[in-house]
Amino acid sequence: MGEDDDEGSWSAKAAKEATKYGKINMVLPKTDSYTDIPDQSTWNLSPDASYVYYCANETVHGVEFPFIPDTKDVPLVADMSSNMLTRPFDVSKFGVIYAGAQKNIGPAGVTLVIIREDLLGKAAATCPIVLDYTIMAKDNSLHNTPPTFAIYVMGEVFKWIKKNGGVKGMQEKAIEKSNIIYNIIDTSNNFYYCPVKTAVRSRMNVPFRIGGANGNDDLEKEFLAGAQKLGMLQLKGHRSVGGIRASLYNAVTVDNVKALSVYMKDFYQTHKK
Amino acid sequence: MGEDDDEGSWSAKAAKEATKYGKINMVLPKTDSYTDIPDQSTWNLSPDASYVYYCANETVHGVEFPFIPDTKDVPLVADMSSNMLTRPFDVSKFGVIYAGAQKNIGPAGVTLVIIREDLLGKAAATCPIVLDYTIMAKDNSLHNTPPTFAIYVMGEVFKWIKKNGGVKGMQEKAIEKSNIIYNIIDTSNNFYYCPVKTAVRSRMNVPFRIGGANGNDDLEKEFLAGAQKLGMLQLKGHRSVGGIRASLYNAVTVDNVKALSVYMKDFYQTHKK
Repeated sequence: MGEDDDEGSWSAKAAKEATKYGKINMVLPKTDSYTDIPDQSTWNLSPDASYVYYCANETVHGVEFPFIPDTKDVPLVADMSSNMLTRPFDVSKFGVIYAGAQKNIGPAGVTLVIIREDLLGKAAATCPIVLDYTIMAKDNSLHNTPPTFAIYVMGEVFKWIKKNGGVKGMQEKAIEKSNIIYNIIDTSNNFYYCPVKTAVRSRMNVPFRIGGANGNDDLEKEFLAGAQKLGMLQLKGHRSVGGIRASLYNAVTVDNVKALSVYMKDFYQTHKK
Repeated sequence: MGEDDDEGSWSAKAAKEATKYGKINMVLPKTDSYTDIPDQSTWNLSPDASYVYYCANETVHGVEFPFIPDTKDVPLVADMSSNMLTRPFDVSKFGVIYAGAQKNIGPAGVTLVIIREDLLGKAAATCPIVLDYTIMAKDNSLHNTPPTFAIYVMGEVFKWIKKNGGVKGMQEKAIEKSNIIYNIIDTSNNFYYCPVKTAVRSRMNVPFRIGGANGNDDLEKEFLAGAQKLGMLQLKGHRSVGGIRASLYNAVTVDNVKALSVYMKDFYQTHKK
């Protein structure tokens, strides 16, 4: 039996997948809007669960856990694909951590996995070998031909992170960069609108609407077209939510973010009522 | 229920994995030496099998199917990781073809899959989404973040293959290259020894021993050291069989192979009794 906290799109997908293998309890109270993380006192945690799963940073809605959930003796499993290596944290609090490399670690096509040793050897009988962490651990992650080039680039990224202040350095930059954008949003009289509660706002993905809470399609299209002319690409929000989304992964520099902030200020001045 | 023809190491691994999901019949008569492919009349084919699996080229022992097995109405599943895009063949004879890119198609970390449409929608209930070809096909191979760089390089390799005579061009080169090495082996009075029967010798991987059928450790070490000095690396046989193995994938040029052949001739002249 697993548990899932369903704070967004990726968790919902993970929960659906997990129903193939066991009974799933949703830990968080049901919601339609992913704008906050309910207080832990309201969570539906069961001491009998095999594990509790959560997605540490939700890229679509821009919600990030500012704390590590306390699941007592139940192993905590985290998808950190979008915020691994962006803040120091206590790895010992986790049963399993996995992170697709493509956001902050390296090229798409390799996944970093950390698993507590006492959780090895428990794969279901139907678990394919390529997904069996026990076998991967035993074979030093070389059971099959590994994605060599992607791993090489990861190594280069690790060196780059070390040279730039380590994970703590990445954290400082992440706070600085996201604050720049959130400050513009919060001082725009709702011209820019981010529905996410301040405490759980993602430092990685800043989703916002232009022209009010529900967004103004024409303004958003104009914003995206203007950004593109300035070489700022991929600012369109995830297709499931629309609007704008600024992603501020480790490779995005403070200067990059300042360029976006200048454009956002100009656009606001030109279009505010 | 699946069937497996077990003509080598990779098939044995595939068969072991398949026992997790059903009953496995071995199609080929049991053998300890992987040096031939028994005549099809001796195969243990069941018309009730869900599929028959085979590995089209066995990299460890250097055995390659020169024909496509006839499995009547039973879907044929082939691992073509090591000889995809090295010979034209009738794709319509297969139910599923898969090929890890790393030998002839591109960098490690991406797998090419061709599946007959009527075989979609049959995944087991416990099949993880990332291995469910039905979902991959429906989502245009983009269900998850794809390994973008590896796919880009594959595209470049496809262009290179087209520019160099297409798959037919690759086939001609594969025959030319492998013949160069097999000819030296066959005219060396068993100084070089390849146990594989001529008809099923791999055009991709040429395994051989030096100093007779069981190999001479000292000679083989000397051969590898000398090759390394000339910049010819990775000529050591797979650890499970020892000896020497020359791999002649698409990226290896005829000139590369000629350089190896010159070295082999020199080594033979120096060390023959």
